[in-house]
Amino acid sequence: MITFDDILAAERVVRPVVHRTPLLSSSTFNAYCGNRVFLKAENLQRIGAFKIRGAYNKIASLSPEERQRGIVAHSSGNHAQGAALAAKLLGVRAVVIMPKNSPAVKADATRGYGAEVVFCENSLDDRERVAKRYADEQGLVPVHPFNDDKIIAGQGTATLEVGDELKTLDYLFVPVGGGGLIGGSAVAAKHLWPGVKVIGVETEPANDAQRSLRGGSIVRIDPPDTIADGMRTQAVGTRNFEIMQKHVDDIVTVTDAQVLEMMRFLFERMKTVAEPTGAVAPAAVYHNVLGLSDKTVCAIISGGNVEAEMIRRIYA
Amino acid sequence: MITFDDILAAERVVRPVVHRTPLLSSSTFNAYCGNRVFLKAENLQRIGAFKIRGAYNKIASLSPEERQRGIVAHSSGNHAQGAALAAKLLGVRAVVIMPKNSPAVKADATRGYGAEVVFCENSLDDRERVAKRYADEQGLVPVHPFNDDKIIAGQGTATLEVGDELKTLDYLFVPVGGGGLIGGSAVAAKHLWPGVKVIGVETEPANDAQRSLRGGSIVRIDPPDTIADGMRTQAVGTRNFEIMQKHVDDIVTVTDAQVLEMMRFLFERMKTVAEPTGAVAPAAVYHNVLGLSDKTVCAIISGGNVEAEMIRRIYA
Repeated sequence: MITFDDILAAERVVRPVVHRTPLLSSSTFNAYCGNRVFLKAENLQRIGAFKIRGAYNKIASLSPEERQRGIVAHSSGNHAQGAALAAKLLGVRAVVIMPKNSPAVKADATRGYGAEVVFCENSLDDRERVAKRYADEQGLVPVHPFNDDKIIAGQGTATLEVGDELKTLDYLFVPVGGGGLIGGSAVAAKHLWPGVKVIGVETEPANDAQRSLRGGSIVRIDPPDTIADGMRTQAVGTRNFEIMQKHVDDIVTVTDAQVLEMMRFLFERMKTVAEPTGAVAPAAVYHNVLGLSDKTVCAIISGGNVEAEMIRRIYA
Repeated sequence: MITFDDILAAERVVRPVVHRTPLLSSSTFNAYCGNRVFLKAENLQRIGAFKIRGAYNKIASLSPEERQRGIVAHSSGNHAQGAALAAKLLGVRAVVIMPKNSPAVKADATRGYGAEVVFCENSLDDRERVAKRYADEQGLVPVHPFNDDKIIAGQGTATLEVGDELKTLDYLFVPVGGGGLIGGSAVAAKHLWPGVKVIGVETEPANDAQRSLRGGSIVRIDPPDTIADGMRTQAVGTRNFEIMQKHVDDIVTVTDAQVLEMMRFLFERMKTVAEPTGAVAPAAVYHNVLGLSDKTVCAIISGGNVEAEMIRRIYA
């Protein structure tokens, strides 16, 4: 399991390339939920999501020989762009396997960062199969989106930045997909703020991590139907789960409707663009699912890569 | 004319109540225009625009007797909300005169900050007439949106914050309505960065300040038809013009189409919501109307209060 020192080491690696993202706050948000709330705006991160942190830390850790070979990643979302940009910045070849139903803009963005995009069938199984074939045949180094210590430590650097600004914190809310972000965040938080509670958040249809944590073993679910595409991971990773069992206090859920309402509030009142997954943790705080009052709370906006179609849907 | 010390004094007044807004950057933006660009995100300011800075500095400067009487402001836009919130924070009664065609959401927001909203006819003349009547009959202190030293000094605090983060700067681009923001910004900038060029930006139909500066006297135009509603001011103020003549190097224009393109880029690539007037200065940098290369440039996003209707228009 990673330690706080691993996150400090990751910070030294990623510092020159990542944005130091701001904490956003709103007196209307605070008044509505009755707490002092700070939103860590990783939607303002490079590639529009926190994923660059872990991907850069991972690829920078490869040996010269591995860098020479190049990397392969599979993703329908932000990990694709994170791995592509990290590889480009480090001068490493990147092949990214994307399901053929990926939005054209995401494939274009990934190519824009210099990666070779290979399309596969839409199932996770096929993505893994094709990625493994490229790794085997071309000697590419697989870069997993979450079940990897370097990835987890890199994602934890976002919370390290929060620690520079908030000297006390009662609660940290983090969205949970595969568990990379909450893994690094929880290790960082428990070291930075003694007594802090770390709360994972999922949408209701995608509550595999909640069931896993409460039941004591990893639960695998069918691909959930939820607006939050970063929550469509069917199970958390083993390394991520180990951290969650030790450092995450609970996992709560919000509805897709609450996520949409949060996106619109963030947009209209806080002038910031969150993708559905990025609005999940703020939504749990805004709708105060834990019934907190007068606490200092931070929630991570994990990303802002929202399609024009989604905007039209919200403002239709 | 205000001095740098007036801005330092304003900073001490507004610090406890305003957000310290971040500088945003994008490698795509930089690559497109060929400069190192930082956007001062005053759209993330309280009330969604820089206006709270000047209004708070002004109302805080009133004597106890004046505060007892209350203030009156007239505005169709962000000054209404800035004056209302500043008055509320200082426990001062506020009456805000708004044209009857103001969007309901803006009147609601102004009332939400505790101000009394009085509707008038849509002309500037009628707004001024009604405001004067309230001032005369009820003894309210008028708070002008821009032609006032305390207002100008307060608006200058945004650039003071930029100075804490950028130790060198070649160009500062600022949108020009009545001249409050560029007045304070120019005084601050010329003190902070020796040799910096301060450039005002207007939309083409609203080029009164450009004509005024180039011609050497204040030009008054008919209400311009432009998407940028903060540019509909028909003439800059006398105090603002005095500063502009001394400290502003040039005023350039962008088209409404360029503003819309910028809004969409800011939204999609930089995950931040700018109102049309807020996108005017970034648009001049992005479309590089001065033909700069390899310069360090800052542009102020003045606000983010955009109506849902505008979003639908952009994404239609």
